[in-house]
Amino acid sequence: MIYLLDFYIIKDENIDMKIVIGLGGNALISKDRSFEGQYSSINEISYKLALLIKKGYRLVITHGNGPQVGETLLRHEHTKDLIPPLPLFACVAETQGLLGFMLESSINKHLSLLNTKSQIVTLLSRVMISIDDPSLSNPTKPIGPFYYEENIKDLLKINPNIRFKKIDGMYRRVVPSPEPIKILNIDAVKRLLDDGFNVITGGGGGIPIANDHFIDAVIDKDLTSERLATELNVSKLILLTNEKGVYLNYKSENERLLKNVTTSELKYYLACNKFEEGSMKPKVKAALRFVENTKREAVIADLDDLLDAVDGKAGTVISL
Amino acid sequence: MIYLLDFYIIKDENIDMKIVIGLGGNALISKDRSFEGQYSSINEISYKLALLIKKGYRLVITHGNGPQVGETLLRHEHTKDLIPPLPLFACVAETQGLLGFMLESSINKHLSLLNTKSQIVTLLSRVMISIDDPSLSNPTKPIGPFYYEENIKDLLKINPNIRFKKIDGMYRRVVPSPEPIKILNIDAVKRLLDDGFNVITGGGGGIPIANDHFIDAVIDKDLTSERLATELNVSKLILLTNEKGVYLNYKSENERLLKNVTTSELKYYLACNKFEEGSMKPKVKAALRFVENTKREAVIADLDDLLDAVDGKAGTVISL
Repeated sequence: MIYLLDFYIIKDENIDMKIVIGLGGNALISKDRSFEGQYSSINEISYKLALLIKKGYRLVITHGNGPQVGETLLRHEHTKDLIPPLPLFACVAETQGLLGFMLESSINKHLSLLNTKSQIVTLLSRVMISIDDPSLSNPTKPIGPFYYEENIKDLLKINPNIRFKKIDGMYRRVVPSPEPIKILNIDAVKRLLDDGFNVITGGGGGIPIANDHFIDAVIDKDLTSERLATELNVSKLILLTNEKGVYLNYKSENERLLKNVTTSELKYYLACNKFEEGSMKPKVKAALRFVENTKREAVIADLDDLLDAVDGKAGTVISL
Repeated sequence: MIYLLDFYIIKDENIDMKIVIGLGGNALISKDRSFEGQYSSINEISYKLALLIKKGYRLVITHGNGPQVGETLLRHEHTKDLIPPLPLFACVAETQGLLGFMLESSINKHLSLLNTKSQIVTLLSRVMISIDDPSLSNPTKPIGPFYYEENIKDLLKINPNIRFKKIDGMYRRVVPSPEPIKILNIDAVKRLLDDGFNVITGGGGGIPIANDHFIDAVIDKDLTSERLATELNVSKLILLTNEKGVYLNYKSENERLLKNVTTSELKYYLACNKFEEGSMKPKVKAALRFVENTKREAVIADLDDLLDAVDGKAGTVISL
């Protein structure tokens, strides 16, 4: 029933404001790992994204791929005696196809139900990184499933080069997560956006390229969102996660949600090492860069609070 | 050395002519099934495609995915006890990511070596089919590797619904290959093309959708090329394969290559059932439709003869 109700409430307000929205890879996953399970878990956020487009926003959407690219890589590794496995960067390309298709289909379905002419399309994207990025020799980005200690050995038999990190008593595979320098297809994104399209791009942070070589890594998608948002000169950068926003003293007794914060305050907290590596820290970094580059606002918010976050009524709002 | 030579010979002729080029999935594959092997086999055709762009052509490129989507599907099926397998249409989306990325990277590398500013980008594409398409109950499109009879049983143990077809004494998996009705992202392709970009799209024939449902099938990419070419109103449709063109009495003593042929002649041969199902027949059908729809020329030619084929000096040229 919510659909019918919203259909009458929402009006095209001709806002015509460009926003970059970064979706976590975990946001696109469900406990039911079948296609239907995953697709239906995308449905809810897709509906909200379609509502924003209906309201007159033009969106550029990036998405993470941590859980999915880990699974794709496992499929390649576990069938290596049957079919030559492809490297991690090729798996990133596969997830851009898969997740882009799922998001694009779901959002367009809602746009059509909302009687909105605007469309969303998906552009593959290759992203330049530095061959000297320190992360290349220090893998920190978790991908794929969680493992018990005893299962690690089986996986190491298949690929002895896999690196693991202990998270909450279990183990997860980690890969390098370099910083994006340049989105190689930015001109096409810009053009489509100016022509009234909404665009999914930078999926999984982008396919990493350094000095014309493909690199086995998963670029941080929050930092890629910042590159897109700054280059496209959008009004706002919104990074969605499964937390209400940025917390001080996270998961401790005196944890506190930051509601409105300036870049200088946030830089101070960052310098004090208040935020989790590979999780909240890259979001904070990305938000800071966008606000400093453009003097506009960035919001870090819960996926469920997207509509309020766009209005600055939920999440952590970062401004100059 | 060929690079250096061509670099000085080729001039920007400001031709500014739009062409749709369909590449066979076999054209993108090499005996060396590693990523490096496959990527280097794409190199040669990418160089020629970049030369055309340098000359002033604007290209829309579609590609087949028969061998690749078959391998992707096998990876999913063989790891089904580890990770829930995704359906065929999702594998098509994965190959759009993988093959689009490989072609885009390789062509852009050559464009840069040729000092050409024009770029190529990749748009995912979903394609509408009819739920009543007769092919949905009659799979004919071969995908993935060739099998000996004894290996078939192993595969049927994993998925008892797989259908096979005997080809040249061996067996190959076959899937439905419906006709494309509408390219759902055509507006974005048109816009990018008009804005001076070259576009890879319709990969693997497109991700099949009928009545808002995703369909497990591999759409014929030649017919998808025709839909693109007609809708985009391009000057020429070129379908590349590993034959010199369309033959009468193919592989028999009195085989004869058709060089220039009118639609009425070709329709007569088609009615006489002169062409191979799932191979030359869809190419002939696609070419006929394009020529009749637009009154322009279509060419069916060998991958190696691309540059001559564009000038009408190689392959089978079909005109009204």
